[in-house]
Amino acid sequence: MFPLPQHLIDQAKAKVGITDLSKATIRQICALAAQLESITATPYIHLEIGNPGLQPEQIGVEAECKALKSGIASHYPDIAGIAPLKNAASRFISAFIDLDLPPDCIVPTVGSMQGSFTLMLLMKHLSPQKDTILFIDPGFPAQHSQAHVIGLKSRSFDIYPHRGAEPLRRKLNQMLADNRVAAIIYSNPNNPAWINLTDQELQAIGQAATDHDAIVLEDHAYLGMDFRTDFSHPFQSPYIPTVARYTDNCILLISASKIFSYAGQRIACVAFGKNIARRQYPHLNHFFGISSLIDAYIFGVLYSASSGTAHSAQCALAAMMDAAADGRLNFVDHTAVYAHRCSKARQIFTDHGFRLVYSHDGPKPVSDGFFITLAYGNLSGMQLAEQLLRHGIATIPLSTTGSTQQGLRVCSSMITSDTDFETLASRLDSFVAHNPTTD
Amino acid sequence: MFPLPQHLIDQAKAKVGITDLSKATIRQICALAAQLESITATPYIHLEIGNPGLQPEQIGVEAECKALKSGIASHYPDIAGIAPLKNAASRFISAFIDLDLPPDCIVPTVGSMQGSFTLMLLMKHLSPQKDTILFIDPGFPAQHSQAHVIGLKSRSFDIYPHRGAEPLRRKLNQMLADNRVAAIIYSNPNNPAWINLTDQELQAIGQAATDHDAIVLEDHAYLGMDFRTDFSHPFQSPYIPTVARYTDNCILLISASKIFSYAGQRIACVAFGKNIARRQYPHLNHFFGISSLIDAYIFGVLYSASSGTAHSAQCALAAMMDAAADGRLNFVDHTAVYAHRCSKARQIFTDHGFRLVYSHDGPKPVSDGFFITLAYGNLSGMQLAEQLLRHGIATIPLSTTGSTQQGLRVCSSMITSDTDFETLASRLDSFVAHNPTTD
Repeated sequence: MFPLPQHLIDQAKAKVGITDLSKATIRQICALAAQLESITATPYIHLEIGNPGLQPEQIGVEAECKALKSGIASHYPDIAGIAPLKNAASRFISAFIDLDLPPDCIVPTVGSMQGSFTLMLLMKHLSPQKDTILFIDPGFPAQHSQAHVIGLKSRSFDIYPHRGAEPLRRKLNQMLADNRVAAIIYSNPNNPAWINLTDQELQAIGQAATDHDAIVLEDHAYLGMDFRTDFSHPFQSPYIPTVARYTDNCILLISASKIFSYAGQRIACVAFGKNIARRQYPHLNHFFGISSLIDAYIFGVLYSASSGTAHSAQCALAAMMDAAADGRLNFVDHTAVYAHRCSKARQIFTDHGFRLVYSHDGPKPVSDGFFITLAYGNLSGMQLAEQLLRHGIATIPLSTTGSTQQGLRVCSSMITSDTDFETLASRLDSFVAHNPTTD
Repeated sequence: MFPLPQHLIDQAKAKVGITDLSKATIRQICALAAQLESITATPYIHLEIGNPGLQPEQIGVEAECKALKSGIASHYPDIAGIAPLKNAASRFISAFIDLDLPPDCIVPTVGSMQGSFTLMLLMKHLSPQKDTILFIDPGFPAQHSQAHVIGLKSRSFDIYPHRGAEPLRRKLNQMLADNRVAAIIYSNPNNPAWINLTDQELQAIGQAATDHDAIVLEDHAYLGMDFRTDFSHPFQSPYIPTVARYTDNCILLISASKIFSYAGQRIACVAFGKNIARRQYPHLNHFFGISSLIDAYIFGVLYSASSGTAHSAQCALAAMMDAAADGRLNFVDHTAVYAHRCSKARQIFTDHGFRLVYSHDGPKPVSDGFFITLAYGNLSGMQLAEQLLRHGIATIPLSTTGSTQQGLRVCSSMITSDTDFETLASRLDSFVAHNPTTD
């Protein structure tokens, strides 16, 4: 069966409309893997998508069913979010991140995808002098596409050679020097590299944002999942790191998708720093007829984009956040299984001659978690992804994430059984046999 | 209590950030009414928002709870929509509109708000020669905002003086003459005017769209709710009118919000005409790396905007559409209550000296339904809306809808009890006493 002949890969790419694999979206790569599964009638090892791979938190499911049965399906939720969710999110953020963000600074969105999409639309109209978003890469590929679709100019740099407070500060000051950057975006823990910024690095970002009047969009899709530290105790130190300790210019994105295994319901929160939420921007008033940052976001952008997010999903997230803050729902423990899967997958890959690309945070090896980044021999990331597809393994080339390193993003969430790990190992045996390295 | 002094209205407007009532969004006007309710500690008569005002269809609620209990909350739904919904929507469209649209031409969205928002984003990148959307007004005010937020150029005309096939054809050919229009958008039944285009008018629109290679976005938010004709029998004539009988260049928007009283769950479908769905556009390939219209929509736009729509809401809509096509759920009968409310409200307003603005479709008086348009004396729409606010009644000025007529949009959905109608009548007594006309 494997390796598939190259022409089958090429046919499948044509069928799903991929002209260049190094620029394909994750969803296109999923469609490509599905196409190859259908051609070969053989299940692929899916390392390409971050589907939760766990059962959804039952507290959310129960709250959602209860709300539906009470009749909420016919009522538009408040466009700013239902009060129970705004209150619960404020408490949750206090419990785990130790930030004081009032409920009216928090707005639900249709997943953090809508969160970042709509925030970028807001950032586009902050000021005529600021027309650019800065990506601290590698990053979630979809966010690059979002800036492109919105028509927000972007610039980016790969953090790989700029780790540490001083190198990062120098690089940021260079990237921000012309003051055209409206916003800086990154995820922490990082998708795809699973690096975690150190407190000194966060401080450097916060200071640079304040100095250059840029707003940091900090994506906490994997909140609390740096498993080297136990962040599972509400209202107790240690708290989850954030740039919000170092700058007022900060908006957090917190999604239920991974932390509560709730990706299917597309529910997240955007949390504005309290000193920036009510800041007045003349250009927002000019464009939206509303000058306060958060009101322009809610009534100008979110209302246009979807007129709010599903009522019952808001009830689910409210219940899960409240339960977590109460200590009744330990989402950190529940997601720790990803670290075990990741560790096993990493071992199998390194046993087959792969090496980690993004390997350390300062002196510490990166956490095991949701993603690992891997390279092999002298293959480019795209070549490697394509060769692995020929051997029944789907991954994402790092080139799609703004990384300048050659390698792959591999997600540990969907390999759940011993059989999966055995299949992975045997397909990698075949891959190595067909792709010997001189190392 | 009423009339409130003008300075209270002005204070409340300032508090909710409205600088010009004639340009306010519906949600801002809702916030203004809520503010005035809070100041006066007296419930307003809410004629400003189209909240369903009925119980959600239980078939949807049950399907959604069942899906949630089966564990779907953790699984990203297919970005193109789950198969049961695509199949059910195809059947539903066949049953009630008599169109043959295959399941792969149908995609769920986070309400038709996301539908029109994302379709406009797609239209923006169809071709460098086409950069404009044409609104056949009056229209849903939020859709005008969407074009503005997206940066799609727009032009519009008030259909009021161009009713009838020939006048409409002449006007359309004039508006489309420079071939810069990528899309034409309107809702039928019309929000806010509740006019229904005649078949001859739809034919004129379809022909003009074909002639000028523009795509019609036909919003069926109030599908089947022209209660002058009984559209309630699946797979039986009469079928719901559509421009799709007269042009291939057509995309329908079908929302669960009103027809199934399901607005809270933000679920709708976008249905591409089968001859346009797979049309290849070089400029889409240039911008999104995908050349087919529907694939660029799904993978280029929708994926960016929210990565799909809540899984359980898709299950609900699938169940409701299937039940309707089976004849087990008579959504036309269920929504007919709006016509009764509308008729009563119309009588009360006309008894107080108000007159209908958009009053006829060809020779026929407009249907009773969800909205009516009303004028009074020589007051402008904005003056009228503000004076009614002073008397405890919230409405929308027609100026926000692209109408050039002076008047209001009044929605009948939220006045449900005899007490509501009595309160409306007594507040109008007071309004008339303070605003005598010379008619």
